Amino acid sequence: MLHFECDYTEGAHPAVIEKICSTNMEQTCGYANDRYCEDARSLIRQLVGIPDADVHFLVGGTQSNRTVISALLRPHQGVVAATTGHIAVHETGAVEASGHKVLTVHSADGKLKASDVKELVMAHYADADHEHCVQPGMVYVSFPTETGTLYSKKELEQLSGICCELGLPLFIDGARLGYGLMADGNDLTLPEIARMCDVFTIGGTKCGALFGEAVVFTGNALGRDFRYLIKQNGGMLAKGRLLGLQFLALLSDGIYFEISKRADRLAMKVRTALEAAGLELCSPCTTNQQFVYMPVPVLEKLEEKYVFSVAPCGREGWRLVRICTSWATTDDAVDALITDISACMEEKI
Amino acid sequence: MLHFECDYTEGAHPAVIEKICSTNMEQTCGYANDRYCEDARSLIRQLVGIPDADVHFLVGGTQSNRTVISALLRPHQGVVAATTGHIAVHETGAVEASGHKVLTVHSADGKLKASDVKELVMAHYADADHEHCVQPGMVYVSFPTETGTLYSKKELEQLSGICCELGLPLFIDGARLGYGLMADGNDLTLPEIARMCDVFTIGGTKCGALFGEAVVFTGNALGRDFRYLIKQNGGMLAKGRLLGLQFLALLSDGIYFEISKRADRLAMKVRTALEAAGLELCSPCTTNQQFVYMPVPVLEKLEEKYVFSVAPCGREGWRLVRICTSWATTDDAVDALITDISACMEEKI
Amino acid sequence: MLHFECDYTEGAHPAVIEKICSTNMEQTCGYANDRYCEDARSLIRQLVGIPDADVHFLVGGTQSNRTVISALLRPHQGVVAATTGHIAVHETGAVEASGHKVLTVHSADGKLKASDVKELVMAHYADADHEHCVQPGMVYVSFPTETGTLYSKKELEQLSGICCELGLPLFIDGARLGYGLMADGNDLTLPEIARMCDVFTIGGTKCGALFGEAVVFTGNALGRDFRYLIKQNGGMLAKGRLLGLQFLALLSDGIYFEISKRADRLAMKVRTALEAAGLELCSPCTTNQQFVYMPVPVLEKLEEKYVFSVAPCGREGWRLVRICTSWATTDDAVDALITDISACMEEKI
Amino acid sequence: MLHFECDYTEGAHPAVIEKICSTNMEQTCGYANDRYCEDARSLIRQLVGIPDADVHFLVGGTQSNRTVISALLRPHQGVVAATTGHIAVHETGAVEASGHKVLTVHSADGKLKASDVKELVMAHYADADHEHCVQPGMVYVSFPTETGTLYSKKELEQLSGICCELGLPLFIDGARLGYGLMADGNDLTLPEIARMCDVFTIGGTKCGALFGEAVVFTGNALGRDFRYLIKQNGGMLAKGRLLGLQFLALLSDGIYFEISKRADRLAMKVRTALEAAGLELCSPCTTNQQFVYMPVPVLEKLEEKYVFSVAPCGREGWRLVRICTSWATTDDAVDALITDISACMEEKI
Repeated sequence: MLHFECDYTEGAHPAVIEKICSTNMEQTCGYANDRYCEDARSLIRQLVGIPDADVHFLVGGTQSNRTVISALLRPHQGVVAATTGHIAVHETGAVEASGHKVLTVHSADGKLKASDVKELVMAHYADADHEHCVQPGMVYVSFPTETGTLYSKKELEQLSGICCELGLPLFIDGARLGYGLMADGNDLTLPEIARMCDVFTIGGTKCGALFGEAVVFTGNALGRDFRYLIKQNGGMLAKGRLLGLQFLALLSDGIYFEISKRADRLAMKVRTALEAAGLELCSPCTTNQQFVYMPVPVLEKLEEKYVFSVAPCGREGWRLVRICTSWATTDDAVDALITDISACMEEKI
Repeated sequence: MLHFECDYTEGAHPAVIEKICSTNMEQTCGYANDRYCEDARSLIRQLVGIPDADVHFLVGGTQSNRTVISALLRPHQGVVAATTGHIAVHETGAVEASGHKVLTVHSADGKLKASDVKELVMAHYADADHEHCVQPGMVYVSFPTETGTLYSKKELEQLSGICCELGLPLFIDGARLGYGLMADGNDLTLPEIARMCDVFTIGGTKCGALFGEAVVFTGNALGRDFRYLIKQNGGMLAKGRLLGLQFLALLSDGIYFEISKRADRLAMKVRTALEAAGLELCSPCTTNQQFVYMPVPVLEKLEEKYVFSVAPCGREGWRLVRICTSWATTDDAVDALITDISACMEEKI
Repeated sequence: MLHFECDYTEGAHPAVIEKICSTNMEQTCGYANDRYCEDARSLIRQLVGIPDADVHFLVGGTQSNRTVISALLRPHQGVVAATTGHIAVHETGAVEASGHKVLTVHSADGKLKASDVKELVMAHYADADHEHCVQPGMVYVSFPTETGTLYSKKELEQLSGICCELGLPLFIDGARLGYGLMADGNDLTLPEIARMCDVFTIGGTKCGALFGEAVVFTGNALGRDFRYLIKQNGGMLAKGRLLGLQFLALLSDGIYFEISKRADRLAMKVRTALEAAGLELCSPCTTNQQFVYMPVPVLEKLEEKYVFSVAPCGREGWRLVRICTSWATTDDAVDALITDISACMEEKI
Repeated sequence: MLHFECDYTEGAHPAVIEKICSTNMEQTCGYANDRYCEDARSLIRQLVGIPDADVHFLVGGTQSNRTVISALLRPHQGVVAATTGHIAVHETGAVEASGHKVLTVHSADGKLKASDVKELVMAHYADADHEHCVQPGMVYVSFPTETGTLYSKKELEQLSGICCELGLPLFIDGARLGYGLMADGNDLTLPEIARMCDVFTIGGTKCGALFGEAVVFTGNALGRDFRYLIKQNGGMLAKGRLLGLQFLALLSDGIYFEISKRADRLAMKVRTALEAAGLELCSPCTTNQQFVYMPVPVLEKLEEKYVFSVAPCGREGWRLVRICTSWATTDDAVDALITDISACMEEKI
C-alpha cells in the first residue's frame, strides 16, 4: 500500500537522522538548555529576522497550541478561530481542558477574515450583558489552513492590523508552515509572517522531523515564564537537545524549505491529474494537501492500492478525500497514483 | 419606569419573605443539612414522584449547570446543547472553565431534536480519528428553552429515548420550569419530566424565590458525592436553610405553579396585543418570555416608560425585543404596556 | 439545644431582614448593577478610605476565594498560604479545581510570617530547576485566622512589605473581618488593612448577613474584568441587590462593628470561664472563636445541651472543641454555658 | 566535564537508534496504531503477565502522570502521594492544572506506608465536614522513589491491600522502573508489580530510550477512552511508531534490564567509594541515584571536572548532592570519579 493519508507516515529526513546519530553519545544538559537548542534558537531568530525573539521547542502540535493559548489568556477569555481550526475540531478539547472556549467563526475556505474578527469583538462589547459571555482574548489562525488554503500578504496584514487595533494577540499555527511558504502563489516570507503576529509555530513533525514544533514569540513579554507552562503541560522533553538538533538539521542548509517545495510540487501534480480526470477539487489549494470529491466506486478501486483520509461530504455516493504529499513522497508513488486516478475515472465513464 | 426586561427585577413572593422572617432567629445547622431542607427534599421527591430522588439546593443557575455538568462528564467529554443553550452563550464559559466543550447543534427554535443528537453521536464514532475529537458525554436542554419554546411530550420522549439508547445522561435546565409547566399547550407534567431525564433543576430565582435552584437527580448513582462538588464550585450556602425555606414556601401550597400560570397568562396578553398591533413574534411561545421584532422608532418611544431586553436582529432599523412577565408583574403594568404598544404602532402608521 | 458550633446558625440581623422586606417589591436591574449595590460600594470605599477601590459582591466565601485567586494567578502560579488556611483545607480543592496549587507554609498559630514567605520564594528561585516547580504568585492570609488569631499591625506591615518587595499580590480573607477588627488587643483599622493588601474581603455571612462577601480591590488593575470571573465562577447573583442591601444595612450605622464587638465580648466571657475551670485554651485568641482542649466525659456531658465543633487533637481521651459566638448569641445562652462548664469540670474532679 | 547530574544526558542505547534508523523510510499509520506499537504492546503484556493489559505509549513522565491521574479521578478527588513525590514537587503543578489536589503524606524515606494511607482516608471520613475537604481518590507511588529507595514486596503488598480495601486505585510511577527491578536487594518482579497496582508506567526516557513511557493499565476498565485523554493532554505522538520501536528495541532481548543492572552496579561502586571516603549517604539506596552530603569545598573541587545535581540541605557549609549513573555511564568515568572523590576528601583532611 502507498500512503497518502497524511504527511507523517515516514520517520525523518536523513539529515535529521544523521544529526541524531552522530551526537548520540555526547553528554549535554537536559530540558532544551543545551548548546544545540541554543544554536537552533539563534538560527531561528536570524531566519525570522527578530534578534530577540523568544524561541521554545515542544514535541507536538496540540501540545504547542494548548500551551501557547493557556499562556496568553486570562480565565474568562476565549480564542477566536475558524470553525475548521485545528483547535476547534481535532484536539479533543485541549483548549477547553485548559479552561477556555474556542470562539468559532464560520469560514468557507478555512481562513479567518479581519472583518469577521472585528464584527465578533464589536458584537461582544455591544451586548449589555457581555460579562455573561466569554471575552475574545486572542486570535488563532493556521498557515496553511486545515483545508490547505493560504492567507495572502494583504489578508494577513489586515488580520494583523485588526488584532493590533483590538488588542488581541495573533497566534499563527504553522504546523505545515514550510508547505505554506513554498507554495505556488504564496506572497509571504517567514520574516513577514513573524512580523505580523505575536506568536507562531514552525512545524517540524509534518515537514521532515521525527517530531518537534518551534514556538516563536515575536515580542518578549508574552512568552514570560513560558518554560513553566511547557513543563506543566507535559511538553518539556528531558532530552531536549533532540529538538534543537532536528531544527538545526532542517534549517541550517535550507532543507526545510527545499523538501516542502518539492512536496508542494508533487501535490500540484496530483491536483492537475485530478482536475484532468474531471474531479472537483474542494478548495483552491497550492500546498501539500489536496481535497477532492470522489465517487465511492472510484475511491474503493483506488483504496486497493492507496491509503487516503476519507470523510463524508454530504453528497450521496461521494466522499471528500484528502491526498497528502510530504518530504518523503517519491515521484514514482505520485506517478503511479496519477495513472491510477486517470484509469479509474475513465473506467467509470 | 416599568421593568419587563427579565423575570428577576423584584425580590421574592411574600410567602417566601414571610417564611424567612418567621424563622430568622431559629438555630439550625448549616450547609443545607437542616430540617427545612430535609422537608423541602421530601416534598420535591413527592412532587416529582420519585421516592429516592437525590435532591440538592444551590444558589444560582450558572452555578447549578457547571456543577451538574462537571459531576457527570469525564475530562475528554463534552455536553451536547443547542447553539442557543444558556451554557453555550451566557455563562462566560463556565462549562469550559470546568474543562469541557459545549458541542453545539444548530437549532432554529431553541430545541434539540432527538435526530440531531443521534446524528452528532453517530458522526463522532464514524470518524476514524474520533479520539482526536471531544466525545459527546451528556445532553443539555432547557425547559422552557432560552427562546421561550417548549418540548412536547412526544419530542421529549424521543430525546430521552435516544439519550438512553446512546448511554448519554440527559440534563434538563429548569431555570423557568414553572412557566413551562403552566404554559398553554404544554402537555408535560413534572413527574413526566423527571422520569424522562437523569437530572433536572427546578428554578427558584426566576419563579418567586429570592434565589435558589433545586437540582434533582432522578436516579441515585449520578449524584454520588455531589455535595463535594457543590462545595468545590462555591455553591454550598452556609445558611443553607434559606434554600429549603424558600422551596417549602413556594411548593407547599402550590404557589410556585399558581404564580407561574399567572405570569404566563399576562405574557400571552402582551403577545396578543403585539400581534394585534401587527408586529411579528419571533417564536410560537406560550411562556412568560415573548420575543418580538420592533422598529427602532416604536422601541424608542416605548423605552421612555418601559425597560426591555434588546438585541440586534440582522434587520436594518429593527430590533429583537424580549418582554418578560413574572410572578410580580401587575395587571396594571401589562395593561399600560398594551395600550402604549398599540398607540405607538398606530402613530407610526 | 443551644448552638455554639459556628457563627451561622441563625438568619440575619433584624436590620438586614428589615431592609430586604421593605424593598421587596421595588423593581431594579439585576446582577449587582442596581442603586443599592452602587450605594454599598460607595459606602465601602469611604469606610476603607480608598476613593477608587473596586468593590464587588459575591454570595459566599469559598466562591470569593476561588474567584479572586483565579483572577490573580497565571496558570503556572500557586498561592502561598498557611497549612491551616481555609483555601488549603476546607474548600474541597476549589483552588486546585481552578488549576492552581496552594503552596503551604507550616504555621503553629495560623499566621503566615513575612520571613517564611520570603524564604519560600527565595528557595524557589534558588532551585536551578525552578521551572519544574509551581511559581509563587500571590499570598493568602485570613484576618482573623482560621484558629482565631490576629495579625498585629507590625506583623501585617512586614508581610505586606515583603509581598510588595517580591511582587506578590496580598489577599486578605476577611470572612470574619468584623470579629477581628473589634477584638481586644487588635491594633489594626479597616483603612490600614485595606492599605496593606491588594485585595480583601469583608465577610457578611458570619457577621450578621444572610449571606454575602464584599471583595475589595484596593488598586484598580487587579480587579480588571472581575465581573466576567464572578459570572464564570457561578457567583453572579441575579437579584444582586440583595447583596448591596445587606451591606448597606450592616455598614450604614455601624451595626457590623457593634455586633462583632459584642460577639467578641461574649466569646471572651466563655474563654475566661474555660480558663477558670482549668481547661487549656489552644491559642491566644480574642475573637469570636475559642478553641479549647476538653476531656471526653466533660464534652459528652455538655453535648447534652450544647452543640460545638469537635475535632480529634492527638491526645487520647481529649478533643479539640471550637466554641463560637455570633451577632445572634444571647447573654443567657453564654451564662448557661459558663455555668455548665464550671459544673461539669467540678463534677469531674 | 563528565555528567552525573541525571540519567538523561546522552541520546539512546544503540539498539534503539538502530531500530529507528532501519525503519525510517517505512510507511505506517500514525498515533501509535502501527504494527510496531502493536508488537510492543503484546510484548509488554507478556512481560507483565497480564494478557489483556491495556498498554499505551506517551512521550514523557509528567505527561504520563497528569494524563493517568486525570483519567482516574473525579473533580472533587485528590491523589495521595509522599511529600517527596514527583507529582507533588517537580511537575509545575500539572496535577493541579488538571484540577486535582495532591494530598501529601510526610515520608522520611520517600515511601508511602500502608498505614499512613489508611490513616489519611479514615481521618477524611471521620470529619463531619468531609465534603468540605478533597476526597482521597487514588494513590501514587514511585518505584524506585524520588530518593532512590525501593518498596519491598511486603511493603507493596500491604499498600496494595489497603488501596484495594479502601477502593483507591494504586498508580506506580516507574520512570526508573528498570533501575528498581535490577537493584541489589529488590525482591519484586515485573509481574508482581503489575499484579499489585491498577496502573503503572515503564520508563523509557531514563532507561535507554530517546524518550517514551509505557502506561500499563492492569485491568481494563480504568483505561477506558484513555486515548482521548492522551490526545487532549498533548501526548499523542503523530509518528507514534517511534515509541513502539523504542520499547521493542529495549524489551525484546532484555536490553532494558541489562543496562539498568549495569547502571545500578556502577552507582553502588560510587556509593561504596563515598562511604569509604567518610561521606554520609542520605538514604539506603541501591538504585542508580545516590544522594550524599558533601562539604562545599569538596564539592567545588569536584565540580571542576564533574556535573552533579546539588541542593541545599539545611547544614551550613554542606550540600545534598545527587550522583546518577545510567545505561550510558562508562566504567572509566566512574573510576575517575571515585579516584577524585577519594583524593578530594583526603586533601581536605
